Amino acid sequence: MSITGLASIGGNNVQGNGSAFLAFDPSKRESMAPAFYMVDAQQIDTACRLAQAAFDPFRSTTDEQRAVFLETIAQQIMALGDELIVRAMAESGLPRARLEGERGRTAGQLKLFADLLREGSWRDVRIDSALPERQPPRPDLRMRMIGLGPVAVFAASNFPLAFSVAGGDTASALAAGCPVVLKAHSAHPGTSELMARAIVRAIQVCELPAGVFSLLTGTGNGIGQELVRHPAIQAVGFTGSRSGGMALMAVAAARAQPIPVYAEMSSINPVYLLPQALANRTTEIAQGFAASLTLGAGQFCTNPGLVLALAGADFERFAQHAAQALSGAACATMLTPGIASSYQSGVQRLAAQTEVTSLTPVANAVKEEGKGGPALFLTSGAAFLAQAALHDEIFGPASLLVACRDLNQMLEITEKLEGQLTATLQLDDADLPMAARLLPVLERRVGRILANGFPTGVEVATAMVHGGPFPSTSDGRSTSVGTGAINRFLRPVSYQNLPQALLPDALRDLNPLGIWRRRDGTLGKE
Amino acid sequence: MSITGLASIGGNNVQGNGSAFLAFDPSKRESMAPAFYMVDAQQIDTACRLAQAAFDPFRSTTDEQRAVFLETIAQQIMALGDELIVRAMAESGLPRARLEGERGRTAGQLKLFADLLREGSWRDVRIDSALPERQPPRPDLRMRMIGLGPVAVFAASNFPLAFSVAGGDTASALAAGCPVVLKAHSAHPGTSELMARAIVRAIQVCELPAGVFSLLTGTGNGIGQELVRHPAIQAVGFTGSRSGGMALMAVAAARAQPIPVYAEMSSINPVYLLPQALANRTTEIAQGFAASLTLGAGQFCTNPGLVLALAGADFERFAQHAAQALSGAACATMLTPGIASSYQSGVQRLAAQTEVTSLTPVANAVKEEGKGGPALFLTSGAAFLAQAALHDEIFGPASLLVACRDLNQMLEITEKLEGQLTATLQLDDADLPMAARLLPVLERRVGRILANGFPTGVEVATAMVHGGPFPSTSDGRSTSVGTGAINRFLRPVSYQNLPQALLPDALRDLNPLGIWRRRDGTLGKE
Repeated sequence: MSITGLASIGGNNVQGNGSAFLAFDPSKRESMAPAFYMVDAQQIDTACRLAQAAFDPFRSTTDEQRAVFLETIAQQIMALGDELIVRAMAESGLPRARLEGERGRTAGQLKLFADLLREGSWRDVRIDSALPERQPPRPDLRMRMIGLGPVAVFAASNFPLAFSVAGGDTASALAAGCPVVLKAHSAHPGTSELMARAIVRAIQVCELPAGVFSLLTGTGNGIGQELVRHPAIQAVGFTGSRSGGMALMAVAAARAQPIPVYAEMSSINPVYLLPQALANRTTEIAQGFAASLTLGAGQFCTNPGLVLALAGADFERFAQHAAQALSGAACATMLTPGIASSYQSGVQRLAAQTEVTSLTPVANAVKEEGKGGPALFLTSGAAFLAQAALHDEIFGPASLLVACRDLNQMLEITEKLEGQLTATLQLDDADLPMAARLLPVLERRVGRILANGFPTGVEVATAMVHGGPFPSTSDGRSTSVGTGAINRFLRPVSYQNLPQALLPDALRDLNPLGIWRRRDGTLGKE
Repeated sequence: MSITGLASIGGNNVQGNGSAFLAFDPSKRESMAPAFYMVDAQQIDTACRLAQAAFDPFRSTTDEQRAVFLETIAQQIMALGDELIVRAMAESGLPRARLEGERGRTAGQLKLFADLLREGSWRDVRIDSALPERQPPRPDLRMRMIGLGPVAVFAASNFPLAFSVAGGDTASALAAGCPVVLKAHSAHPGTSELMARAIVRAIQVCELPAGVFSLLTGTGNGIGQELVRHPAIQAVGFTGSRSGGMALMAVAAARAQPIPVYAEMSSINPVYLLPQALANRTTEIAQGFAASLTLGAGQFCTNPGLVLALAGADFERFAQHAAQALSGAACATMLTPGIASSYQSGVQRLAAQTEVTSLTPVANAVKEEGKGGPALFLTSGAAFLAQAALHDEIFGPASLLVACRDLNQMLEITEKLEGQLTATLQLDDADLPMAARLLPVLERRVGRILANGFPTGVEVATAMVHGGPFPSTSDGRSTSVGTGAINRFLRPVSYQNLPQALLPDALRDLNPLGIWRRRDGTLGKE
């Protein structure tokens, strides 16, 4: 068996100096060998110092070199073969097809950032020519983006590949020229070790400084907080719980030098069923909704946890169809015992709220330890407005239908929602005027607005925003999926009257890289 | 006399409900009529609610409408005529030519943002076409930037026009479609009132919602903190002291919904005299340095407060020439009695440090109340490394020369400097290898790197970065000068499969605005 239980610190495989812990197979409900060990403060410090030392040489590589590096990571991930998939299945309880797809997505997003590096406009190069005749003379000014510095990345429980060791945060940070110190998720340490091995091999193949990547092993919050406190760390990428993200935000703000935290935390992803669409496509929408809600046992940040429609017969029909579609779904193994137990208590808490009706048998949703079944609830717009607890995310296949009195109440609810990753409009032509009323409010409240689809399924693309106003993320100015994710780890530097010999290639006369640049305000390849 | 002492809340001229205060003429050292009044919590709340209500209609204006609005503000500022200049001279102690220049800069930057709005690429439009044949099908995804929401802007003491009521923060926030609630600086309330009048007139001429702009009058920190705590406020722009900026950062981080703070705080702007340039141009550099140091009584964020060179005869000659050039400079009236008194105590504190030699008579620098004279000090690289107090900014015409033992010590000092707005290299051809050693370190430490100039003089341009790592600013990912400043107040929103009828013009097929867009990864005007 190739999994060793070792951390990877600047390319060295080392055993954590702290206490041991084991991976857990949530399907079999049993622990798995070998033992992993918590890294200690000194090991965290070593990883961060190596990342700091690697930053200047790494960011001085050419964009082509970093593009090849990202592609090599993708190749090395594929070269891990079936061992990766088997281990990830065991550690997550997720099925093979999902994990094979997720591996493809992970490799694909590494390649997308490689393409972005070659295209070059991510540098946001700007050149304002000198105007020596002007009084006072205007200097020659040139600007480009550079990396922020070493980035602490926290792997997510729910995407052991695509949002973890070599996931989107790591890919975008490495693309920006930032070394990564990665806190592995304790739910999938073996998967993490394999993925780290792929990155370390790519570092060796590409002859990059070993400090470009380290993998820290451990459980609990202490290691992550120590990591975020380290002065070498210049930004944080995190996907996880609201309490976890908020704790890291507090640590980052309390540093002598505060640093940005990009935490993707919680979202209930409202779905609006507008009247015409609801009347025309009741069954179809109900089935699509049930499929989206139960996909991956509902363990998606974009799971549709809230459905809003006008009260009436059509919505009642929808509710019946949805409940029926869900009643066929079995309880599914959840990622960790902790997630399953949080889900079950969340469902029971919601079922116990006044003015909330259970449309599916609650007992079915919570009947097996370690598993979660679908749970559908109904309440009124007035009750939803009155009870803040109804706005909380329940991570898993649970959703709350809200019957609104009228459009005004729907708008009022929308204004009172916390920030969300997504909002979905089910609409037909006659619904356009109502959608147009909702749209400006939604733009202020969410990062992505969909029509006639469901929010699960986050395309890795240039125009994707997987982000949104607080608390869906800590920083609504950013996305963690798609090429825009690189912007999180960049800052601008301006060069005034520097001799050509000192300028980086991206800023030199004659544009040796052939990239898009903004010269005297005009975009072009001059 | 047209100055009334009234605040402006959503277009209404109202007297603050709190206690009275007077403007102060620092040249004459006397208070000026009329009285102004502190706004109270209710008035702050009204301004913020009006801003919130104005946000959707304001951001729904066309980019052309907002461009005309910015140009109209510029016209209305010019239409204020000489009363503005006379009042600003009285309130700031700054000379006419400087303030006329600053007015031109203020109008110019409003026009620059108007041009930016018309050009359109600030929206960062991205379109990924649907791929219906792919498995799974790729949806149609379109992304654009929108404004964050109402912005709280704090006027600066040292630029009563260009970094104040209608300054760069306001111009960039309005360009982004964000209403502004402005906290006037108590050092120039009359100037603020006149400038607010220009904005309010422009709002009326352009028939925009009155809540787009409010001016809050007052002294102290309470009003600003109340403003930043208000739930309607979505971002903060600030130029001022480190303690003031840090206090606002703490308030913003402690909100139920944390918001970004763009505070430009403190910088000592190191100037590196590389050996060949120092030997070749000793006198010329010394004179240029003295002129930059004393410009505007040294009251610039980019004032050259630190000079680093290798110890030796050339640096000693430089020190003599610089001290001589400065000895001719008279004490100058500073912006406020508080700034003058901080300057004087800062100079005396530095003079009292061990291993610091005064190269100019300290008594001359601090001899007159309300004024500051130039002060030049010398220390060794070792002493600078050992004493953290030598790294502090002294706001005014004081600078510290540091004689470094060798290049390694110069690099070590550079690594230990806090984040800075600028670094300047005086270099000749033979200095290029040494400059190349310094450059990567400087890129990590500062926002703008200059060669053979001085850091005062911040061009308003597309490639300017007036920003830098903490604590020069609270957020080194941003600039407060130049077109890049608009990015501070924007966030991305993605639209998936939305019908054309619901899409904003910037995202529609056929590109009705004719702006740059990134379609399927490629920039163009499709």
